[in-house]
Amino acid sequence: MPNAKLLESFPNPNPGRDYVVEHVSDEFTSVCPKTGHPDFGSVTLRYVPDGSCVELKALKLYYQSFRNEGIFYEAVTNRIADDLAAAMKPRWMILQTDWKGRGGIRSTIRVNVGPVPPGA
Amino acid sequence: MPNAKLLESFPNPNPGRDYVVEHVSDEFTSVCPKTGHPDFGSVTLRYVPDGSCVELKALKLYYQSFRNEGIFYEAVTNRIADDLAAAMKPRWMILQTDWKGRGGIRSTIRVNVGPVPPGA
Amino acid sequence: MPNAKLLESFPNPNPGRDYVVEHVSDEFTSVCPKTGHPDFGSVTLRYVPDGSCVELKALKLYYQSFRNEGIFYEAVTNRIADDLAAAMKPRWMILQTDWKGRGGIRSTIRVNVGPVPPGA
Amino acid sequence: MPNAKLLESFPNPNPGRDYVVEHVSDEFTSVCPKTGHPDFGSVTLRYVPDGSCVELKALKLYYQSFRNEGIFYEAVTNRIADDLAAAMKPRWMILQTDWKGRGGIRSTIRVNVGPVPPGA
Amino acid sequence: MPNAKLLESFPNPNPGRDYVVEHVSDEFTSVCPKTGHPDFGSVTLRYVPDGSCVELKALKLYYQSFRNEGIFYEAVTNRIADDLAAAMKPRWMILQTDWKGRGGIRSTIRVNVGPVPPGA
Amino acid sequence: MPNAKLLESFPNPNPGRDYVVEHVSDEFTSVCPKTGHPDFGSVTLRYVPDGSCVELKALKLYYQSFRNEGIFYEAVTNRIADDLAAAMKPRWMILQTDWKGRGGIRSTIRVNVGPVPPGA
Amino acid sequence: MPNAKLLESFPNPNPGRDYVVEHVSDEFTSVCPKTGHPDFGSVTLRYVPDGSCVELKALKLYYQSFRNEGIFYEAVTNRIADDLAAAMKPRWMILQTDWKGRGGIRSTIRVNVGPVPPGA
Amino acid sequence: MPNAKLLESFPNPNPGRDYVVEHVSDEFTSVCPKTGHPDFGSVTLRYVPDGSCVELKALKLYYQSFRNEGIFYEAVTNRIADDLAAAMKPRWMILQTDWKGRGGIRSTIRVNVGPVPPGA
Amino acid sequence: MPNAKLLESFPNPNPGRDYVVEHVSDEFTSVCPKTGHPDFGSVTLRYVPDGSCVELKALKLYYQSFRNEGIFYEAVTNRIADDLAAAMKPRWMILQTDWKGRGGIRSTIRVNVGPVPPGA
Amino acid sequence: MPNAKLLESFPNPNPGRDYVVEHVSDEFTSVCPKTGHPDFGSVTLRYVPDGSCVELKALKLYYQSFRNEGIFYEAVTNRIADDLAAAMKPRWMILQTDWKGRGGIRSTIRVNVGPVPPGA
Repeated sequence: MPNAKLLESFPNPNPGRDYVVEHVSDEFTSVCPKTGHPDFGSVTLRYVPDGSCVELKALKLYYQSFRNEGIFYEAVTNRIADDLAAAMKPRWMILQTDWKGRGGIRSTIRVNVGPVPPGA
Repeated sequence: MPNAKLLESFPNPNPGRDYVVEHVSDEFTSVCPKTGHPDFGSVTLRYVPDGSCVELKALKLYYQSFRNEGIFYEAVTNRIADDLAAAMKPRWMILQTDWKGRGGIRSTIRVNVGPVPPGA
Repeated sequence: MPNAKLLESFPNPNPGRDYVVEHVSDEFTSVCPKTGHPDFGSVTLRYVPDGSCVELKALKLYYQSFRNEGIFYEAVTNRIADDLAAAMKPRWMILQTDWKGRGGIRSTIRVNVGPVPPGA
Repeated sequence: MPNAKLLESFPNPNPGRDYVVEHVSDEFTSVCPKTGHPDFGSVTLRYVPDGSCVELKALKLYYQSFRNEGIFYEAVTNRIADDLAAAMKPRWMILQTDWKGRGGIRSTIRVNVGPVPPGA
Repeated sequence: MPNAKLLESFPNPNPGRDYVVEHVSDEFTSVCPKTGHPDFGSVTLRYVPDGSCVELKALKLYYQSFRNEGIFYEAVTNRIADDLAAAMKPRWMILQTDWKGRGGIRSTIRVNVGPVPPGA
Repeated sequence: MPNAKLLESFPNPNPGRDYVVEHVSDEFTSVCPKTGHPDFGSVTLRYVPDGSCVELKALKLYYQSFRNEGIFYEAVTNRIADDLAAAMKPRWMILQTDWKGRGGIRSTIRVNVGPVPPGA
Repeated sequence: MPNAKLLESFPNPNPGRDYVVEHVSDEFTSVCPKTGHPDFGSVTLRYVPDGSCVELKALKLYYQSFRNEGIFYEAVTNRIADDLAAAMKPRWMILQTDWKGRGGIRSTIRVNVGPVPPGA
Repeated sequence: MPNAKLLESFPNPNPGRDYVVEHVSDEFTSVCPKTGHPDFGSVTLRYVPDGSCVELKALKLYYQSFRNEGIFYEAVTNRIADDLAAAMKPRWMILQTDWKGRGGIRSTIRVNVGPVPPGA
Repeated sequence: MPNAKLLESFPNPNPGRDYVVEHVSDEFTSVCPKTGHPDFGSVTLRYVPDGSCVELKALKLYYQSFRNEGIFYEAVTNRIADDLAAAMKPRWMILQTDWKGRGGIRSTIRVNVGPVPPGA
Repeated sequence: MPNAKLLESFPNPNPGRDYVVEHVSDEFTSVCPKTGHPDFGSVTLRYVPDGSCVELKALKLYYQSFRNEGIFYEAVTNRIADDLAAAMKPRWMILQTDWKGRGGIRSTIRVNVGPVPPGA
């Protein structure tokens, strides 16, 4: 099940600077809470780190923890955004999910956290 | 026949945030009220939820309820927009239909509901 | 010969709303008034309906009525725009024709009718 | 040799309206005045007509009259612009030439005549 | 190991002018400090030189010095930006790294140094 | 060796007008002053002529005069810009070089001369 | 766990003819038996039916039964081929899996069952 | 240094069948024995297994063992082919390397081991 | 000037096997013996080595030795084929040159040396 | 007017070998003998030389000599083939013309001279 404790961070190597980090995972999967069928999509995380950066292997394991979770698109997108915001406290963050078709319908959910920094 | 009661919604998991949801269905079909021939097209729904989100399987069944309805492009587009607005009361919504050629003519209808939120 | 009486309209199903309708016909043909050779092109109609919408099968028959008419590109484009404006009285309309090469020259004519509505 | 008298125009069928006409010829050829070798290129004419429109077959013959003329890219582009401006007195016009490589160098010349109308 | 002393510069041949230099290396490789596996990516450097320009062969050797270094994406991007800024003192600089997928996740890190000059 | 005297110009056929000329050469080659190996790239010249235009065959011979010159990317770009500015005194000019990869690194240098005219 | 009993078939509606059926699933996932990480890929089934055809919804559920199975690429490909061959007894069959990169390596496994019919 | 002992294999799950396995690695790197500069390329392995299959994570580690080896393109290609042939004894194998440009020259080396089986 | 002594070879690491080597250089330049203008093209070498392989840096320097040589397309292609055949004595070889347009004419010259081996 | 005397040849540098030469001109133009309008097309020459090769600048001038000649597609193709065969006496030759559309019809004419050599 989803487990925010899997998230690890390491100290931002250059907190004195506003710079942009982007991680795109094309292999996200969870389960539709209504039909029980698997959902497949991609997750895009874009942020300006403050005190810490998310560690990439931990991020992968955190994403994998949703594998057998029944959860709506809207909920999983907001939950990932909240978990990452709590773990890293970024200066700014976008979290977007893009889902392959289910029942002939393709979907996208996009969450924005905080004001956009000038240089992002 | 078109049946708005098929639409179901679930509580917005994060109503404190303006975020964008998009669902694209490439498999919409209805019937031309003048010729009786089937029409094929796609339906794009993009919105910022307020208190509730549209449930995806219900949305698919609602779309399928137009399958044998004789209805003009303009009417079906406005009707879907009205039904979804009534069911979800979104903060903002766009509903667009793109129709494959009929008699050598391709068509697009686009409806906008409410003012665009800053982050959409 | 061109016959505006072929145009039919039906009542706008949602006159309380500014929304956009687009019809693209890739199979338009008329005759060059100077050489007598056929011209081939596409016609794009984009408009915001007011009281009425153009009916699609009638639009196709109206376009077909130009098949043996000798008429300049500029004239046919303005005439279609005028006929449609008279038949529908849209709030705003664009009528554009794109012509395949004749004598090694490709052409495009674009007419704009009325001020662009904010949401178009 | 270049002959502006070949240009013919016909009355603008709708002078009460600002609309855009574009003609693209992909088969233009003239001669380099320095080397005597032929040049090959395309000519794009885009304008808003005032009292008259350029006739297409005449435009083709006018372009063909440059076939054996030794003339620089810059001069031919300005001359065509001037001849068309004199013949049609358009409200606005762009004349652009795009030349195939000669000696490994590709070239483009673009002339703008008059202020751009709002709807162009 | 990473060695900023490999960087060489030569006097800017035209310091009186703001002009833009861009170098893109598609063959960067370092090592993940957590898993020990190699990382592969590209490095884009874009800058306006002040007193000196970075020499290209030296830049290549400097990039190669990261080949067996265990270092996070964020750290290597900031370190290269810092080393180049110290060596060249450019008027403005962007340093961006784009990494091939690792564990199904693709990443991009972008650092901006100094205000953007008007002509860049 | 580079020889600015090879550049020839001819009187601008229409100095009363601001118009844009662009010449792109895909076959530029010079020599790396550090390694002695040949460099290959393209040179893009875009300008608004004032009293004179650069003659194209002379431009080709001028570019060819760099064939065996050992010169850095930055220096050759600024030198061509300076030579052309001195020969033609254009109202505005951009000179850009795009170089094929050397040691796995692709490069672009861009010089801007004078303020951009409104119509360019 | 993988469950061949989920497979269902229905009578071939035209056994008197050799014809080809192809089903491509882009959403297959199983687990690497060595690392425990999920694998993602597509499964292509192409066959000429004899007495029966595979039912599509049952095929989807059968594929989903591998979701949490630790199994090598080669084994899962052969197992699916064997299960389908046992359930349908096709005249000819190809079963191919294409896997997304893992550790920078993309893989394809292809199994052929029976002689190729002339028209396949 | 290159280490064939890193290669591991597992029993072919279906030795009674001729089927094809393909693994493509886009992230191979070794060192030029003449210049000391790194080489970058891809390695394609395609084979029909006999008694055993190559294990994928082991294959990745084996490829990584060439990272700091000075070795010619031809030698590395033959060596990988020999090591894999010795470790797996496939019924048939192709080993191909495709190298990014070095000094403006792109290279491909292809080794074929054994006769091609009918179904490969 | 062209210098076959620049060619170096090294012992074929696997003379017991027929395998294919291909080197493509996109940066070849020589001079037209008739006009004195530079020619630009690519050179493709494809061969099956016997006792020796051509060394890549030496091949690059050999190609560069044609930089200022006035020589026809046909002659340079045959000369490179002869020089490489003499230096390596391959079991089979193709040498092809593809030239960018000169005077609007693109050219290709292809030389085949020896019978094609079965596996090439 | 067409002038075969413009063709020049030079001795085949390697008559002991069957090799293939191809020249493609994309800038051929002549005049339609029926309408007087210019035709535009490309000319492809592919041949195995015997005692002599066609010189490229002379070939260009020869092609240009058709610029104002009124001649049918079929006639010009056969004439060029005859003139080149007489001037070079190749072992084998193909002469093909591809014409841009006129009246909406694109055309290709292909002439083969002599038996095809084995290696061509």
